[in-house]
Amino acid sequence: MVEVEVAPPRAHEVRVKIVCTSLCHTDLTFWRMKDFPAMYPSILGHEAVGVVESVGDHVEEVAPGDTVVPVFLPQCGGCADCLSPRSNICSALSYRPGLMPRDGTTRFSLAATGEPVHGFLSVSSFAEYTVVDVAHVVRLGGSALPPEKACLLSCGVSTGVGAAWKVAALEPGSTVAVFGMGTVGLAVAQGSKMRGAKRIIGVDLNPDKFEIGKRLGVTDFINPNDTGEKTVSQVIKEMTGGGVDYSFECIGSTSVMAEAFESSRTGWGKTIILGTDTAAAPVSISSSAIKRGRSVTGALLGGIKPKDDIPVLAQKCLDKELELDEFVTHRMGFDDINRAFDLLAQGKCLRCIIWMDGAEQKKAGA
Amino acid sequence: MVEVEVAPPRAHEVRVKIVCTSLCHTDLTFWRMKDFPAMYPSILGHEAVGVVESVGDHVEEVAPGDTVVPVFLPQCGGCADCLSPRSNICSALSYRPGLMPRDGTTRFSLAATGEPVHGFLSVSSFAEYTVVDVAHVVRLGGSALPPEKACLLSCGVSTGVGAAWKVAALEPGSTVAVFGMGTVGLAVAQGSKMRGAKRIIGVDLNPDKFEIGKRLGVTDFINPNDTGEKTVSQVIKEMTGGGVDYSFECIGSTSVMAEAFESSRTGWGKTIILGTDTAAAPVSISSSAIKRGRSVTGALLGGIKPKDDIPVLAQKCLDKELELDEFVTHRMGFDDINRAFDLLAQGKCLRCIIWMDGAEQKKAGA
Repeated sequence: MVEVEVAPPRAHEVRVKIVCTSLCHTDLTFWRMKDFPAMYPSILGHEAVGVVESVGDHVEEVAPGDTVVPVFLPQCGGCADCLSPRSNICSALSYRPGLMPRDGTTRFSLAATGEPVHGFLSVSSFAEYTVVDVAHVVRLGGSALPPEKACLLSCGVSTGVGAAWKVAALEPGSTVAVFGMGTVGLAVAQGSKMRGAKRIIGVDLNPDKFEIGKRLGVTDFINPNDTGEKTVSQVIKEMTGGGVDYSFECIGSTSVMAEAFESSRTGWGKTIILGTDTAAAPVSISSSAIKRGRSVTGALLGGIKPKDDIPVLAQKCLDKELELDEFVTHRMGFDDINRAFDLLAQGKCLRCIIWMDGAEQKKAGA
Repeated sequence: MVEVEVAPPRAHEVRVKIVCTSLCHTDLTFWRMKDFPAMYPSILGHEAVGVVESVGDHVEEVAPGDTVVPVFLPQCGGCADCLSPRSNICSALSYRPGLMPRDGTTRFSLAATGEPVHGFLSVSSFAEYTVVDVAHVVRLGGSALPPEKACLLSCGVSTGVGAAWKVAALEPGSTVAVFGMGTVGLAVAQGSKMRGAKRIIGVDLNPDKFEIGKRLGVTDFINPNDTGEKTVSQVIKEMTGGGVDYSFECIGSTSVMAEAFESSRTGWGKTIILGTDTAAAPVSISSSAIKRGRSVTGALLGGIKPKDDIPVLAQKCLDKELELDEFVTHRMGFDDINRAFDLLAQGKCLRCIIWMDGAEQKKAGA
């Protein structure tokens, strides 16, 4: 814990007082990473909710006092991608690792020495205040959504639910396989259940995941350690009479991506890649198998457009259509953040919610 | 040329008198292939049109005298795939290399010795008569489509036009790249033009292809030998401001498939694999690039359902919406078939139409 100076927002920027933040696996991945795109010193964290403290010039969309969810994916609203219903990859603002997207500088510096500190994924929420480009904030409006739930919509849960909703556009009665039952995978299961999937097969090396999975819609569980001579895809093909309609990779392993593809059905099986392979290794797909009507696609943030779709998900939470309680396994104060890293590294949590203000934390936990 | 005995059709089979047939690159590939799935002796050929000569038991769909197009892809009409609009991969009849799909035998034998002769792709049209499963014939009804055009709809042209129509479901104003300007690639261009593509970039090592390509809708041409230090995908990205909406691979090379993927746009770019890699090598796709909203898919016969969609294409030919004249570059009698193999091997033809009856050929050529 060090004291950091957070400069005022420049044009098109918003300074946000973080209310709570949570730890996502990508934070852990970058924390462990030695080289670019990891940049040190930096302020990690990209799943959060906060209140606008001040705004820079040309910011009309939000005002001080507004509750906002900062998001790693921008939505400028004006580029060809933002204007198309087919894309959620804003082409106006490109990501500059560790820096603000418009001017390539940082708003953070060490209070003691003035040394610049990098941001992370355009959010940098492991700080009491952060500065975010206005393209990266979603205003929740008058929503009475509890902060913990808003926080979860910032990345992991939206990625999983969005993938079932926007990328798969899953039909009722579909069969689904989910590889990796962390927050993203479990949210895929929940999103698939919301869309009427009849069978949701969860795959994870940790047998404890089945219990929580069941509560979120998983109907069958496969532990790759228990399939004997058979591969997971062979087991799935036997269970489903040829493979699932939709296969989601939520780990970030190219070998699991290939196995997810193998588990998908000939004719129309779709494989959706959500995990990030940090080695940037290519995924290897049989060119003859794909010609038999299969497809592979991938998405960031589950294909959702942050400003359009996160408010929709927030409303689904308020309507109890989307239940997020299961995802909050731990709560702690900001001082305890290193414990949150340990829990995630050991696979012992889904989401640790880190509250900046102890009094608020007590209210949420009550 | 040898004399072959063609046995009568068994249950669910149709004996067809071939009117004309054409040579597709897959015939050439198998002719050169030494090992399984190539099987010798065999009767190649899978693009044809003919007249039903006799039918086996349980055949209601066609009767002697009907004009039919035999197709390598079955459509049983009753399986989950045939009943779904999402698939054209019939799951009831699987392909048995060289043999009839239901009983795994052959209807061909050498007249001199009685030795069995294998079929090819369930069609075997390089013979005056062939026997085809009823799931593999499309009845053209009262259509007055000239035999040469019906023949072209049997495989290559339907694959290309279908890919633009059914797999891409291409929107007006789209940008397209076509890798490989053989019959399939040129039919992709024509199908894309029919659907209102605004820019169709053809890629081929043979500069002669641009002239015919232009007549079929190609607006820009790239010869990979002329791009200097740049890759084809770099050139395409520059031409289109980031990549095309739809990228079609019509060669069957995994390196070209990877380049086609690279040429597709972030956000919604779709790569469609139509070529067959005979080495069955996997295609290698960047897992991080695909997560930025891209997708890869593939299709046999351009995603069309033979019995449903070939009659639609036939009607489009009669309505002059689909023009096939450009695809017929040569006509010859059956005795000259080896010349057709040579022309295709040298890349000197699109489709050589091989007429079984010289008198009919003269009428067509007039």
